[in-house]
Amino acid sequence: MMPDLEKRILPVIMCGGAGTRLWPASRDSMPKQFISLVDGEPSTFRRTLERVADPAVFERPVVITASDARFIVAEQVQQAGIAADIVLEPERRDSAAAVAVAAHRAAEQGPDTVVLILAADHVIGDADAFVAACRAAASGAAAGHIMTLGIRPTGPATEYGYIQTGARLPGAAGEHGACHVERFLEKPDAERAAGLVAKGALWNSGYFLFRADTLIQELAAHAPEVSAAAKAALEGATKDLDFVRLDPAAFAAAPKISIDYALMERTSRAGVLPVAFPWSDVGSWNALWAVSPRDPDGNVVRGRAALAGTRNSLVHSDGEILTAVVGLEDVVVVTTPDAILVTSRARSAEVKDLVTQLRREGHAEADEHRRMYRPWGWYQRIDIGTRFQVKRIMVKPEGRLSLQKHYHRAEHWIVVKGTAQVTVNDDVSLVHENEAIYLPIGSMHRLVNPGKIPLELIEVQVGSYTGEDDIIRVEDVYGR
Amino acid sequence: MMPDLEKRILPVIMCGGAGTRLWPASRDSMPKQFISLVDGEPSTFRRTLERVADPAVFERPVVITASDARFIVAEQVQQAGIAADIVLEPERRDSAAAVAVAAHRAAEQGPDTVVLILAADHVIGDADAFVAACRAAASGAAAGHIMTLGIRPTGPATEYGYIQTGARLPGAAGEHGACHVERFLEKPDAERAAGLVAKGALWNSGYFLFRADTLIQELAAHAPEVSAAAKAALEGATKDLDFVRLDPAAFAAAPKISIDYALMERTSRAGVLPVAFPWSDVGSWNALWAVSPRDPDGNVVRGRAALAGTRNSLVHSDGEILTAVVGLEDVVVVTTPDAILVTSRARSAEVKDLVTQLRREGHAEADEHRRMYRPWGWYQRIDIGTRFQVKRIMVKPEGRLSLQKHYHRAEHWIVVKGTAQVTVNDDVSLVHENEAIYLPIGSMHRLVNPGKIPLELIEVQVGSYTGEDDIIRVEDVYGR
Repeated sequence: MMPDLEKRILPVIMCGGAGTRLWPASRDSMPKQFISLVDGEPSTFRRTLERVADPAVFERPVVITASDARFIVAEQVQQAGIAADIVLEPERRDSAAAVAVAAHRAAEQGPDTVVLILAADHVIGDADAFVAACRAAASGAAAGHIMTLGIRPTGPATEYGYIQTGARLPGAAGEHGACHVERFLEKPDAERAAGLVAKGALWNSGYFLFRADTLIQELAAHAPEVSAAAKAALEGATKDLDFVRLDPAAFAAAPKISIDYALMERTSRAGVLPVAFPWSDVGSWNALWAVSPRDPDGNVVRGRAALAGTRNSLVHSDGEILTAVVGLEDVVVVTTPDAILVTSRARSAEVKDLVTQLRREGHAEADEHRRMYRPWGWYQRIDIGTRFQVKRIMVKPEGRLSLQKHYHRAEHWIVVKGTAQVTVNDDVSLVHENEAIYLPIGSMHRLVNPGKIPLELIEVQVGSYTGEDDIIRVEDVYGR
Repeated sequence: MMPDLEKRILPVIMCGGAGTRLWPASRDSMPKQFISLVDGEPSTFRRTLERVADPAVFERPVVITASDARFIVAEQVQQAGIAADIVLEPERRDSAAAVAVAAHRAAEQGPDTVVLILAADHVIGDADAFVAACRAAASGAAAGHIMTLGIRPTGPATEYGYIQTGARLPGAAGEHGACHVERFLEKPDAERAAGLVAKGALWNSGYFLFRADTLIQELAAHAPEVSAAAKAALEGATKDLDFVRLDPAAFAAAPKISIDYALMERTSRAGVLPVAFPWSDVGSWNALWAVSPRDPDGNVVRGRAALAGTRNSLVHSDGEILTAVVGLEDVVVVTTPDAILVTSRARSAEVKDLVTQLRREGHAEADEHRRMYRPWGWYQRIDIGTRFQVKRIMVKPEGRLSLQKHYHRAEHWIVVKGTAQVTVNDDVSLVHENEAIYLPIGSMHRLVNPGKIPLELIEVQVGSYTGEDDIIRVEDVYGR
């Protein structure tokens, strides 16, 4: 056993990524850190929360995320049963601004508070080894170093940055193997990667541990604008439902730069703890294949699939779709109800460029999932035709849609599970399973789940235009 | 111009195949000859009908098909605007029985009637050359030969049988290049195929032309049981709506054998006309690729698709699905709402085995399409959950569903296009666009489209069991 920590570590989970590299399972409307990538497994964000849940080691975690993702974050925090603070970035300003916010917020709890910066979308194979590494690195942080975790390479990867280690750190951290950072190195080509691995360089995991005051001092020296913007954004922050919303104008003043460029490559106080637990940033479908359990043919299969003569492949089949792969090797096949990806493992990193191309060509599937999550639940289009559209809608217990009306469509709601409380103009009624209600065009209406179980209904829209933007919101409990 | 024919040719289209080789686009519930395989093109069955539509050359065509496919055949015959007789096989008995039925039926029009046997699922690149070939071969048939069309190979294919030609036929057919058949050869391996092509052997197309009396005589000599069964099945045939339904017991007595084995390899009267028009039996996805127009990267793309760094591939994307392929060569990707196939062009013929495997494993997608065609129109499941199911239903003008009831589900119908006439127990009412009607559990109901445009409605089923077999049909105009 390790000795007790003098102070608990404050985990700050960076949760703002879009995850286009795992399209079409991951999209802007539901990025990869929030989806289950392995059958029966929760999302990597939930796993990350669980990893820092031990109150003997960690303070109540902070999640920094994009405003658009706030309801998903809140829901998954609740599902994990872990209390957390949620800080909302009004816009994406890269990692330096977010880390600066974390440091300034931690300083309010005490200038010597040790902060752990974690990514929400990593897979770690050994949770205990991770916690032990955090504790060891925390002693370096407590001594005034800005510590990173350096992963011992399992091969000459070209998709990670590398860290060259220097002299052993003095004190407790040094006893655990922590060193000064000699140099941070950009993602190398294959040849250079092999040389780096041979010389004992480590992968840059993107995990950082530091004392709040250390980081604030170093930011003041190397990136004062970032620090000032983060401080002002926190001072101007407002509480919005359960969220801390950073001041938009102040935050927008932060330069868009990563913490590596802004600080780590410039400070003389960088330290690194070499670690050897299984780790992946799941930065491509191939990375997911590599980190997942494989069957005797080397395949990773999820969902309904039939493989024949197929080896070393990843097949990720969504919902009810049956995905058949015949006579192929080293391929990636990802099927969702509205978008399908087929690529090779070797070239799966190019999916990021594909998504850019799809956006340019105006394909909504680039960013939007068929199932769209809302604070009250979700909706999913199940059919569309000329002058009509059909959706399945789920409302959580106590969920309330906004009071709204449409100019171009009437709606029929048929409850298939649970009970709905429906307001149409001045009338309020309960609609039960196997009952229907009609919302005439132009009527003011609201849908509420007053019950204890999820409400599901089928909505049939009929009208000259069924676009999502034909909605006049009169009142909304979620502040939209 | 060719001289006028003394007698017109009677085309008989063999339309009974299941087409599992083009799964999942082609399935038992809608085999490949009935689907559009190339954007904007009608089905190969419709193209086949059109190819024999010139009344200066051809008699009114006969279609021989499986009983299950009768409504699709009738609909596509109607769409083509071509009058045809439709003969229904009570079960599949291979090609000899069907050809024998064609011969006996033709003999009723006159023993010297020249019959052309055609497949419904072939692609022919030059319709005029095909008709000219039929006319030339018909002169050989009129002279008492059982003629085939022999395709000049474009390469050493292993998926076709071959024909070795003998001496030139005497008379008019010989002037067109027709020869005696020296020998029919089974599908060869690659080496043997190359040798056959070098020696001038032809592909066996499966097209036959013969006088009715010639074929009946030769069947009497070589396959008397097939001939007797076919004759009896015709004599016992009944008219059912617009169909001629062969006598099931008599037809079942026909040996299950192909016309090649039963007759062509045994008769001394086989002749062949070498032809050189572009032809394919579209026996695999690779064959479809080979016969389709390709873009500069060698790709054949249909539907919504995004390709990056992909060459010499076939991408067939159904309906609204967006199919993305990145960094692959020589692959086949076929996407439908409920089943996806990914394979290589080289191994696409193995799809037939895959379908067998899927059947064994009990996957309904092996045989059933999401959209199920019925004599009155079609239905398609668009969503399913615990205790509910949602369908989109299309009823053709004047289409009438059976009078029916369900023991385990209630139904809500919302009309989204056209007008429905709905009977519920003793009440009949008209339901217009944007109106709904409720069918309580156990109620006797019927749906009719009394209008001039297709009726479309959304059906929401709610109940403890929503399987297709919970249907009690009381009366049905289509004789089901």
